Amino acid sequence: MKRIGMLTSGGDCQALNAAMRGVVKSVSHSGEDVEIYGFIDGYRGLIYGDFRMLTSRDFSGILTKGGTILGSSRTPFKTIKDPDENGLDKVEAMKQNYYKLKLDCLVILGGNGTHKTANLLREEGLNIVTLPKTIDNDLYGTDMTFGFQSAVNIATDAIDCIHTTAASHGRVFIVEVMGHKVGWLTLNAGMAGGADIILIPEIPYDIDKVVDAIEARHTGGSKFTILAVAEGAISKEDAALSKKELKEKMKNYTYPSVSYEIADKIQKKSNYEVRVTVPGHTQRGGSPCPYDRVFASRLGSEAGKLIMKGEYGFMVGIKNREIIKVPLEDVAGKLKYVSPDASIIKEAKMLGISFGD
Amino acid sequence: MKRIGMLTSGGDCQALNAAMRGVVKSVSHSGEDVEIYGFIDGYRGLIYGDFRMLTSRDFSGILTKGGTILGSSRTPFKTIKDPDENGLDKVEAMKQNYYKLKLDCLVILGGNGTHKTANLLREEGLNIVTLPKTIDNDLYGTDMTFGFQSAVNIATDAIDCIHTTAASHGRVFIVEVMGHKVGWLTLNAGMAGGADIILIPEIPYDIDKVVDAIEARHTGGSKFTILAVAEGAISKEDAALSKKELKEKMKNYTYPSVSYEIADKIQKKSNYEVRVTVPGHTQRGGSPCPYDRVFASRLGSEAGKLIMKGEYGFMVGIKNREIIKVPLEDVAGKLKYVSPDASIIKEAKMLGISFGD
Amino acid sequence: MKRIGMLTSGGDCQALNAAMRGVVKSVSHSGEDVEIYGFIDGYRGLIYGDFRMLTSRDFSGILTKGGTILGSSRTPFKTIKDPDENGLDKVEAMKQNYYKLKLDCLVILGGNGTHKTANLLREEGLNIVTLPKTIDNDLYGTDMTFGFQSAVNIATDAIDCIHTTAASHGRVFIVEVMGHKVGWLTLNAGMAGGADIILIPEIPYDIDKVVDAIEARHTGGSKFTILAVAEGAISKEDAALSKKELKEKMKNYTYPSVSYEIADKIQKKSNYEVRVTVPGHTQRGGSPCPYDRVFASRLGSEAGKLIMKGEYGFMVGIKNREIIKVPLEDVAGKLKYVSPDASIIKEAKMLGISFGD
Amino acid sequence: MKRIGMLTSGGDCQALNAAMRGVVKSVSHSGEDVEIYGFIDGYRGLIYGDFRMLTSRDFSGILTKGGTILGSSRTPFKTIKDPDENGLDKVEAMKQNYYKLKLDCLVILGGNGTHKTANLLREEGLNIVTLPKTIDNDLYGTDMTFGFQSAVNIATDAIDCIHTTAASHGRVFIVEVMGHKVGWLTLNAGMAGGADIILIPEIPYDIDKVVDAIEARHTGGSKFTILAVAEGAISKEDAALSKKELKEKMKNYTYPSVSYEIADKIQKKSNYEVRVTVPGHTQRGGSPCPYDRVFASRLGSEAGKLIMKGEYGFMVGIKNREIIKVPLEDVAGKLKYVSPDASIIKEAKMLGISFGD
Repeated sequence: MKRIGMLTSGGDCQALNAAMRGVVKSVSHSGEDVEIYGFIDGYRGLIYGDFRMLTSRDFSGILTKGGTILGSSRTPFKTIKDPDENGLDKVEAMKQNYYKLKLDCLVILGGNGTHKTANLLREEGLNIVTLPKTIDNDLYGTDMTFGFQSAVNIATDAIDCIHTTAASHGRVFIVEVMGHKVGWLTLNAGMAGGADIILIPEIPYDIDKVVDAIEARHTGGSKFTILAVAEGAISKEDAALSKKELKEKMKNYTYPSVSYEIADKIQKKSNYEVRVTVPGHTQRGGSPCPYDRVFASRLGSEAGKLIMKGEYGFMVGIKNREIIKVPLEDVAGKLKYVSPDASIIKEAKMLGISFGD
Repeated sequence: MKRIGMLTSGGDCQALNAAMRGVVKSVSHSGEDVEIYGFIDGYRGLIYGDFRMLTSRDFSGILTKGGTILGSSRTPFKTIKDPDENGLDKVEAMKQNYYKLKLDCLVILGGNGTHKTANLLREEGLNIVTLPKTIDNDLYGTDMTFGFQSAVNIATDAIDCIHTTAASHGRVFIVEVMGHKVGWLTLNAGMAGGADIILIPEIPYDIDKVVDAIEARHTGGSKFTILAVAEGAISKEDAALSKKELKEKMKNYTYPSVSYEIADKIQKKSNYEVRVTVPGHTQRGGSPCPYDRVFASRLGSEAGKLIMKGEYGFMVGIKNREIIKVPLEDVAGKLKYVSPDASIIKEAKMLGISFGD
Repeated sequence: MKRIGMLTSGGDCQALNAAMRGVVKSVSHSGEDVEIYGFIDGYRGLIYGDFRMLTSRDFSGILTKGGTILGSSRTPFKTIKDPDENGLDKVEAMKQNYYKLKLDCLVILGGNGTHKTANLLREEGLNIVTLPKTIDNDLYGTDMTFGFQSAVNIATDAIDCIHTTAASHGRVFIVEVMGHKVGWLTLNAGMAGGADIILIPEIPYDIDKVVDAIEARHTGGSKFTILAVAEGAISKEDAALSKKELKEKMKNYTYPSVSYEIADKIQKKSNYEVRVTVPGHTQRGGSPCPYDRVFASRLGSEAGKLIMKGEYGFMVGIKNREIIKVPLEDVAGKLKYVSPDASIIKEAKMLGISFGD
Repeated sequence: MKRIGMLTSGGDCQALNAAMRGVVKSVSHSGEDVEIYGFIDGYRGLIYGDFRMLTSRDFSGILTKGGTILGSSRTPFKTIKDPDENGLDKVEAMKQNYYKLKLDCLVILGGNGTHKTANLLREEGLNIVTLPKTIDNDLYGTDMTFGFQSAVNIATDAIDCIHTTAASHGRVFIVEVMGHKVGWLTLNAGMAGGADIILIPEIPYDIDKVVDAIEARHTGGSKFTILAVAEGAISKEDAALSKKELKEKMKNYTYPSVSYEIADKIQKKSNYEVRVTVPGHTQRGGSPCPYDRVFASRLGSEAGKLIMKGEYGFMVGIKNREIIKVPLEDVAGKLKYVSPDASIIKEAKMLGISFGD
């Protein structure tokens, strides 16, 4: 009999349920008896012993369901070793709950921060298997994360809608896409939506180049321009600042978000009217797209296999279209960035897309 | 031979192209020769004589296409009688262009402001037929406007996406829906998306009632609450102010939009974390939904019939599922509000939806 | 305390769950205690006493869910008074189960056949409230049925997809839309999808006119033609036959469905290659569209109100945008057809659509 | 100055326009002057000299448009060397038109048959660049073809819709997915749609195992079963026949398609009622999904680069997420099958999916 703990941590995304269903179907299919302990709201549930016993029936019919049936919360890695407000040692509490329930392993679904804590628990001796969940596709060690393609679809839908209205009114439009540190989502949604300018954190922009690109379009007869801008887009000047200088500068930041700042700059440097749209949290929600459903199911299936074989300490990912396992210590704390020299960037530039650089 | 001028004015929306295609198909089907003069960017094109000659071929394949092939712009009625920056009398210019091109009539697609100008042109002696375009569904004299149902779909999609993320994180979420003066869009998207609280301009809210409704849900075991809030949602206190007082108060308004204000109030009166999402201009864009395509085509078809019969001075609308014509002077300048006593409001309240009143 | 029985009968469709949720929310909101007895698989569950006790929690989160949480089956009215294979009197059995459970009323969701049985139960003395469910929109006494608009969307999607492939290959394509007796669904999906020819049961077609319409398009420069054909489309010759003659003729019918027959006829009378697509049962499935969610919720809400007031023997419907109640005896057994003289047919013809008549 | 011929051949699919736009944008971006000769309806246009001069403007706004602006037709490779009905040597005619127009190269978008002819033209001395278009994803030498993911989405939508109706009625449903020789589309749509049984050409089925799988589900408490069946699904008995024997056997085949045969067999071996749905050509149509838009744009971009460098004789494909070029002679005539031993098949089986083997 296997006793499996499971939790979803960090910002939710599409296909979390599909992935968990995959794990449970796979383990059940092996024939061995299984008990699933679902911890509520991520690490919080593990810390405070808040869990539900689940059966394979609970995972039936959730393949297409957005969100997570276990709930999620953000539990920052930065403070994970600090005691909570009542003095509780959180790491110790997680270990105690793990041992008290006699768990064989913990299946943890999450993104970058989640993986750091997962790796810490592994170092503390717990049996861990993780699944790479994030709309940002920024996890190191895997070609792809689930949630990403679904989020691309939603962000692209937004750009498609904006396209018709921008064309009708001859305006400059900014669509702000999620991604504070990494530009995969903006890059893909921008290319899919036919954005003319794409600004991502990895390629700091020069506002004059951005305005030039807009003007070149208008000179060429196009009446409108669409920018796909990542939440973490950054100007060359700001990128040149030290962390401390930037922090200082941000104290007086008054824009709701970076797109409003860029809109303001464009309007000041030209006479174009710029509008901003922020799809925001919708990018995390709704039913997973078929790609993510297949991908998350495959990951879950392989995670189940690892569990049955007792192979722990891995993130399950994908490499060259094959599902793989990667040691947690090789993954935790590393981000997968868009390289400014990546082929896809060159291809995008050949399509006439400006990155403002 | 008929010489028809055509223009789309005001904020664009879905099914403008479908409606124009309907007019042209219908007129062409009558067998009479037709020349179509498409004025570019709304009244601006009519004022400055900026137009394109169009054939029925230009209207082929645009049934499903969002936006408007003619472009649109906002030409405020308030200043329509004022000369432009070069001293041009705009109303006189429109009349001259109309007569110079020997038009038989003008087909004008637009919302509330557009209809005021259309009625003015009618009073000035021009032959006018209008079609009711707006995502707000606030035009007087017709049960429905095209664009509305498509916008409901997009706003509902946003709420659906937020639903899964709100449920996963146990949060209070506000989705801000378009509509400065009228709440039809918010009401319908809110009901379709399963919003728990709906705030519309016609029913001023009491923030304490809003917080009570959130707390009642959480007491009842629900971990999250979703609010659908119209851009023009207003508190009881603000609704009690005179126009002048309100204008004075708004001078110091620092929130990006009303949802942020309401989020702030809720957070101050309770300890709930509130997030805001603003789908914004996406609500105007993309391919029209099947309902709008059929509806706009029917309107266009009937407009063509009126033109062939030489019946001018009407808006074509719908009443009890039949396409009708309504004298422009009965329509212009009037808005169709949601009555706080409407059956649909009572029905919504019976479903447990709070309007904060 | 109210004891309410509930069942869904006949072919399933979208928004059945939304409607039931509306009833339960509305009754619960009234403050009175409620017990819900959900009969499984339609009248079958009522006949054989197969039910589940449900709480308002069972109806939470199902607004957007397709299908019916109670299951459904077809129980033909024609044989409802016949004993079952074990000699059981089905009508008597339904009455006995109703009285045994001390039900205050039965809420029945269904289409035409379902309403005949519901009316029979009313005549037998049971308290009945019904809700008009069908993708065919053919129920008498209501402007609209829920499921219809969702099915229009799916059928239109199919036509949209076929449009691009038909245009690319220069072919004649038939999309067969559900509807054996009534053409509302085909008419609306056809108009929304830009079909060139629409064939519905109410307007028997002349195959020569159909071929003429195709050839007129090709003469006019169009390389492809799309037909939206109802399952019950019928030729003028067949429509002229008596029921008995038609039955006799159908004995030797070898086509999988009517579209293949029409495709064959067109190919024989012309040299066009014709392809057939049959979306079939997909038209009944998937998440209800926002229109249906709002509409079904309103119907459910009003049904709850009737129940609390003890007003029974009604179907809840919609008339001129207001929710109404209609006596069951005025509704049962009557169908709402598309009139060949309806304005919408004339409008469609003015758009150049051929009905083959 | 570059003179580029372009054609799309074989069954159309999504993102053909996106790919062509990519080529043209990329070549134009290089700064060199370009003339595009678009041959109408595939090789037919090249054979008979039917073409249109196109400018980069023709490729603007088509990123999201389904189908192909050039039209397509099937020109079987088997008979390409045979003279046409007027005795014309087709291969010679294509060469003559190529030289007459002084083309620098031909860009050919197509699937398996198309590539055989493309390779023949290369052998005849023409400069060829090809792009891998097919919903079947069965082209050798590339990890992915464009059109595939869009078709997966449509087929999955169909299964999703069928899911709710199957569950409501407790039935066995077959969804027939495109793919005569290769099962990628059925496999992915089946996994994404949560199909319980997946039958593909590469894994011949044993009907008894299929019935067992259905009965195991029902024994386990599930009331319904969904099968995703490829057009080319084949039984173990038929797979054991020689080509000649199979051809002989098919002479008396009376089912509209394989799904009806399997439905019949299941019904004969059990007492389940089986329904069949065939989404058919809809799987080829509609707007390309964001994944295909990005992918096709990248392919087009790289094709443009090859053209500018004068590197001919290649198919542009993708390998391990990088765009690559593959010699045409290594690709032509080879199919990429699903291996019955592939990891994804094992993963699917661990999820409880039966392949009837």
